[in-house]
Amino acid sequence: MSIREAVESDWPGIWALMEPIVRAGETYCWDRQMDSGGARELWFEPVPARVCVAVDGDRVLGTAQLHPNRGGGGNHVANASFMTAQEASGRGIARMLAAHVLAEAAAQGYLAMQFNAVVETNVRAVALWQSLGFRILGTVPRAFKHPVQGLTGLHIMHKDLTEGTQ
Amino acid sequence: MSIREAVESDWPGIWALMEPIVRAGETYCWDRQMDSGGARELWFEPVPARVCVAVDGDRVLGTAQLHPNRGGGGNHVANASFMTAQEASGRGIARMLAAHVLAEAAAQGYLAMQFNAVVETNVRAVALWQSLGFRILGTVPRAFKHPVQGLTGLHIMHKDLTEGTQ
Repeated sequence: MSIREAVESDWPGIWALMEPIVRAGETYCWDRQMDSGGARELWFEPVPARVCVAVDGDRVLGTAQLHPNRGGGGNHVANASFMTAQEASGRGIARMLAAHVLAEAAAQGYLAMQFNAVVETNVRAVALWQSLGFRILGTVPRAFKHPVQGLTGLHIMHKDLTEGTQ
Repeated sequence: MSIREAVESDWPGIWALMEPIVRAGETYCWDRQMDSGGARELWFEPVPARVCVAVDGDRVLGTAQLHPNRGGGGNHVANASFMTAQEASGRGIARMLAAHVLAEAAAQGYLAMQFNAVVETNVRAVALWQSLGFRILGTVPRAFKHPVQGLTGLHIMHKDLTEGTQ
């Protein structure tokens, strides 16, 4: 498995892993009916945004997006999003993607990375981010309607990129 | 002074008060070079977003935007933005706009309102939101480059709309 910058022709492979995640609506604040074109527009943004993929041969097993969390005076803090193929879970793909994206963010000069909406019940993701040095800055109560678990919180998580890997 | 829903022809008046705020870059995470067209696109979004104006005769003294803070499972939490004419400050315009927008958000069925990026040094705004029942859920350290004060924090603020005015 390797991680590389995504190219246009990766989109069908990215959408194949993304669509079930979007339809499930359990981890992203995205319209569950979103189609391929809408998702592609969200995922592939203009520069300085970057998208990478974790691939095993021709198969896309994961993808991540890196971009400024805000504009103007807030553009030195990065935001990133991650999705991995459900059938490839447990292989450490998200962790590898995260390491790649954190290094890329630091190389691009971002001073920190912020996640705005980590679903509180997504305990594997929360634990992964914490193990990588992210801390929970706050939790917005009842901010996410989980289709199975009902109203749950959204964590704001943050990692300083100027202190090295923690 | 009255508050009403904005119409297309309000844009020149809105931009007249907005432009100095954008150029100053002290309170919004917007590109300081943004032009009228870019700002208009950010301010007037598709439904269910709403824009209102505080007017004194023909003059626009303030404006506010209300929209879902996130999509999908997060669309029951509102976000709002406020701008008031610098020369009309101290007249309670922001407070009046906020009362209007909070009532509208509750009427539209939003369960809460969240601000994602209140500049920590904007102490008047922070105090206003707190007086209206918002609380600081967390502060992202050094997330905003204030052109005068340097790196400062961004507060995430939140108010539950199901408990009535606090």
